[in-house]
Amino acid sequence: MSADKTPRTEVSSLGEFGLIDHLTSSIKLTQPTTVLGVGDDAAVISAGDRLMLLSTDLFLEGIHFDLVYNPLAHLGYKTVVNSIMDIYAMNGTPTQITVAVGLSKKFSVEMLDQLYSGIKLACEHYDVDFVGGDTSSSYTGLTLSTSVVGWVDKDRIAYRSGAKENDLICVTGNLGAAFMGLQILEREKRLYTDQNIAKTNLDGYEYIIQRQLKPEARRDMVELLKSLGIKPTSMIDISDGLASEILHICKSSKVGARIYLDKLPIASQTFKAAEEMNFDPVVAALNGGEDAELLFTVPIELHDQLKNLGGIDVVGHITAESKGAFLVTPDGSEVLIQAQGWTKQ
Amino acid sequence: MSADKTPRTEVSSLGEFGLIDHLTSSIKLTQPTTVLGVGDDAAVISAGDRLMLLSTDLFLEGIHFDLVYNPLAHLGYKTVVNSIMDIYAMNGTPTQITVAVGLSKKFSVEMLDQLYSGIKLACEHYDVDFVGGDTSSSYTGLTLSTSVVGWVDKDRIAYRSGAKENDLICVTGNLGAAFMGLQILEREKRLYTDQNIAKTNLDGYEYIIQRQLKPEARRDMVELLKSLGIKPTSMIDISDGLASEILHICKSSKVGARIYLDKLPIASQTFKAAEEMNFDPVVAALNGGEDAELLFTVPIELHDQLKNLGGIDVVGHITAESKGAFLVTPDGSEVLIQAQGWTKQ
Repeated sequence: MSADKTPRTEVSSLGEFGLIDHLTSSIKLTQPTTVLGVGDDAAVISAGDRLMLLSTDLFLEGIHFDLVYNPLAHLGYKTVVNSIMDIYAMNGTPTQITVAVGLSKKFSVEMLDQLYSGIKLACEHYDVDFVGGDTSSSYTGLTLSTSVVGWVDKDRIAYRSGAKENDLICVTGNLGAAFMGLQILEREKRLYTDQNIAKTNLDGYEYIIQRQLKPEARRDMVELLKSLGIKPTSMIDISDGLASEILHICKSSKVGARIYLDKLPIASQTFKAAEEMNFDPVVAALNGGEDAELLFTVPIELHDQLKNLGGIDVVGHITAESKGAFLVTPDGSEVLIQAQGWTKQ
Repeated sequence: MSADKTPRTEVSSLGEFGLIDHLTSSIKLTQPTTVLGVGDDAAVISAGDRLMLLSTDLFLEGIHFDLVYNPLAHLGYKTVVNSIMDIYAMNGTPTQITVAVGLSKKFSVEMLDQLYSGIKLACEHYDVDFVGGDTSSSYTGLTLSTSVVGWVDKDRIAYRSGAKENDLICVTGNLGAAFMGLQILEREKRLYTDQNIAKTNLDGYEYIIQRQLKPEARRDMVELLKSLGIKPTSMIDISDGLASEILHICKSSKVGARIYLDKLPIASQTFKAAEEMNFDPVVAALNGGEDAELLFTVPIELHDQLKNLGGIDVVGHITAESKGAFLVTPDGSEVLIQAQGWTKQ
């Protein structure tokens, strides 16, 4: 109850990733079962002859989702998908999830039934057991917090830190679709709010809207790589945009990278929406976020094997750390890749 | 974006525990490693020759804490303590924790440093590794979400469901202190807000205020019971008040209970604060919440061994389910024990 006389440094001056580094740098780990703490998609805990993975995510109304256009069932589904992606990104298999929910008075039992129907559907689809949680009242909207437990064999785990010079940089699926889907939905919301137009024509945007509202997790890709005997040297999920994620890999692996702009996989609806809204599709692909895809590296010897696989694109290669991380444009010029995160919000 | 035409059932009509039952009743568990899902202090997951425990909690500003009188360092400490109590309540040992933080612009880096200093201090004190988390911006205040991993030997785990007729009902420490500490702090806040009185005299309330602002977890009691070779037949942590917790045990164990009012351990400062504020100390002990103590049952044969232990009180005994759960007053009359939870808020 006394006036705060301590100095004040704004969180925005550090950025999301700087803040995490700042807050977690002095953590001491003493438990013999802790293999890895902060710094990857999931914590790694030794459990018998396998490794257990643990990841936590927080989803806040108004920050991560807008209930004007997120149906609650889809939101429940997406919450599970985004959460278990952290386990796939370690090359693991998610097995259990807990979901804690804070809710204000605007939420009825029927609305929660919808939310939980989506949570349960995703759990069934991905063979994840919904094992617990917490419910609480809240003054302001909906808060969702998840923790996922997964497992991976010791010789299969993929950290962010294993990329080596000359490795190929690969991405699954395509990039920027969820972001452009969001832009279409935001435009729809503005029309509704400003001009009371209840529904405009969303034909032709079904795919990117679905990528925003009800994404799927790339279990298929983790299983595909395993079936081919391929173990990524490093892997991360693409949730904050390719630019941020490749920088995480570069930092953890102490390497540089070259990403070729003309190799970025971008869906035709993403191009179409970007054109219509005067947005650069490459920016959507690099910085858009919520892609729910995987970024990984593999030894260059696998190039021929990978290039014929559907759903995986080689977008660049790893370099020495001293060469930095750059985007290479079609004319051969190099643009420094810069981090994003929630600094911009 | 269409009007909601579904019926609307208020969450308050179910109450917290009814809501959890409603939302989680149709969950199917299919993972072979899931031993127990929703319904106890922590989920139980099979991991080699031991059991892994997983628990999640959500703490929201304005609901669970008020930054007017919760120093951030204490709040960080308390968040860890409350979270790991779920693991002790399964008779386990917490080993890893993740903390996800959502924060609005009012929080500076220095304020977060204070919060994290408390989190780290509690982690060091209880030998828990802080292994990960998530940070996010938030529109409204501070959101904290934790997940704790712990371990317990298969033959040591204590569920809510193991209480047997004639078992003794025991509580650690004393009850109602954190709640009366909160009432003192709330009074202080009102004086400050309404009359601009910066500080009244808190002498004589140090203990109950500390119980509210910086509680400790009862690791000592779990270790004491283990050292004595005592395994509780059932156990739960007292976070929502003794009344709620004994009802959880009765429901899970399919038993009834008699709690003797004159056996309830209540600290002298709790009595003093209750008297000063015209509050019934028994109501504080039964329904106050945030006690951070353990409620457990043991076979009646252990009565002599327990009665001489400091810090543990026998407050009643388990009956057949058909006899219900009642509080016995000194004159021998019986009062039905009723659930609380956050319905009242």
